[in-house]
Amino acid sequence: MTSRPPQSGPAYRRLGVAERRGQLIATAQRLFARTPPEGVSLDDVAREAGVSRPLVYRYFPGGKQQLYEAALHSAAADLELCFAVPASGPFSERLAHALDRYLAFVDEHGEGFAALLRGGSVVETSRTTAVVDGVRRTAAEQVVRHLPVRHPGPRLRMAVRTWITAVEAASLIWLDEDRQPPIGELRDLLVDQFVAQLFVMAVRDGQTARVLRAAAALEPRGGRMDALADRTLTMFAPARLES
Amino acid sequence: MTSRPPQSGPAYRRLGVAERRGQLIATAQRLFARTPPEGVSLDDVAREAGVSRPLVYRYFPGGKQQLYEAALHSAAADLELCFAVPASGPFSERLAHALDRYLAFVDEHGEGFAALLRGGSVVETSRTTAVVDGVRRTAAEQVVRHLPVRHPGPRLRMAVRTWITAVEAASLIWLDEDRQPPIGELRDLLVDQFVAQLFVMAVRDGQTARVLRAAAALEPRGGRMDALADRTLTMFAPARLES
Repeated sequence: MTSRPPQSGPAYRRLGVAERRGQLIATAQRLFARTPPEGVSLDDVAREAGVSRPLVYRYFPGGKQQLYEAALHSAAADLELCFAVPASGPFSERLAHALDRYLAFVDEHGEGFAALLRGGSVVETSRTTAVVDGVRRTAAEQVVRHLPVRHPGPRLRMAVRTWITAVEAASLIWLDEDRQPPIGELRDLLVDQFVAQLFVMAVRDGQTARVLRAAAALEPRGGRMDALADRTLTMFAPARLES
Repeated sequence: MTSRPPQSGPAYRRLGVAERRGQLIATAQRLFARTPPEGVSLDDVAREAGVSRPLVYRYFPGGKQQLYEAALHSAAADLELCFAVPASGPFSERLAHALDRYLAFVDEHGEGFAALLRGGSVVETSRTTAVVDGVRRTAAEQVVRHLPVRHPGPRLRMAVRTWITAVEAASLIWLDEDRQPPIGELRDLLVDQFVAQLFVMAVRDGQTARVLRAAAALEPRGGRMDALADRTLTMFAPARLES
């Protein structure tokens, strides 16, 4: 009898080296998504992957720390891909597209995502911090690349980097608040926040003002930016009448 | 001769227990402000405080970890005080006041502040993270207390919490960029960002809209909020004509 009975748990399939490594990393990520790193053991990973503990050690001789770092690097690579959206269409649509991918990642990885951003506690903070900082930097660079600007100055860069952190914070708060508001509303809110961030910077920085105006000129009539402008004008008008 | 000669370095003065403890914590904070935690030794602290190493151990038997945690707790208490400004005057002025204090703290603590927010690497991440998260939570609560609202809903709370993180990010970026732009400009930028954050949330949340309108009604004519509204209207108008 070589065929295994159904429902007997995961089979010990023969996989290639890269495939097995990828499977173990994906398994670890699934576990870290449900449980903080300190609560996940190598036995859990082996059991969940349907392999022996020595096999996990053969691939990750450094044990849990090495596996955690591999899972972190793999998640970082996925995260960085979120912001690499095609360079076509109005800026606000590209941003919405990137945020859809990013929030899907957050939704899927849940608690693991939160642990990832906190640096976890089974590895050296300086090393995990470097990985997470790298993701932030790459995301900021990718966002800037979609803006009509060649050499972003310090104020424009600060606006983009601050927004990246605000996105991160908002998604952690969103997980914390039982995934409220709905994901689509959160995405629209974050796009609007980016535009608002740029507006606030534009009133004191000529370059940001030019970039914002150039980006706005490419937005469709009645699109996201028009809607925000309309709503803002409606909001500002009564506030100014009352004051 | 009981009087010490001038310029002879720190003297071994007799201090009370609380006073000595405070001196050692302040010394540690000064060292952590210049050097990352892993580069500071207990010998450095003893030398800088002008006391013996055993004396430092008598106050902090847990060694560097305990001293680091005490320095962190003390900095957290100082940070929390920044946002406890008097409840009088228009909201934007109170916020500017709180930010002046907060940015002075960042300016003074420099690298140490950055290390503090990263959790450092000589102590358990989960514990330092809890302290830093506590500061964030307190700061958010104190900001909300200055707003004309009794029971802030999830969207208003999200706007405030996201802004707190944006402030934190902006001040780390500011340190990173050799303290540019000037501190006063950074403060004004952060006040404007708060108002913008609330505006963006107000277009999709009735409570935030009411709070913003009530706060705006208390702002002086020609004050910060008017200036932002004027500049925003001027910016939006041409963007809308071009589109």
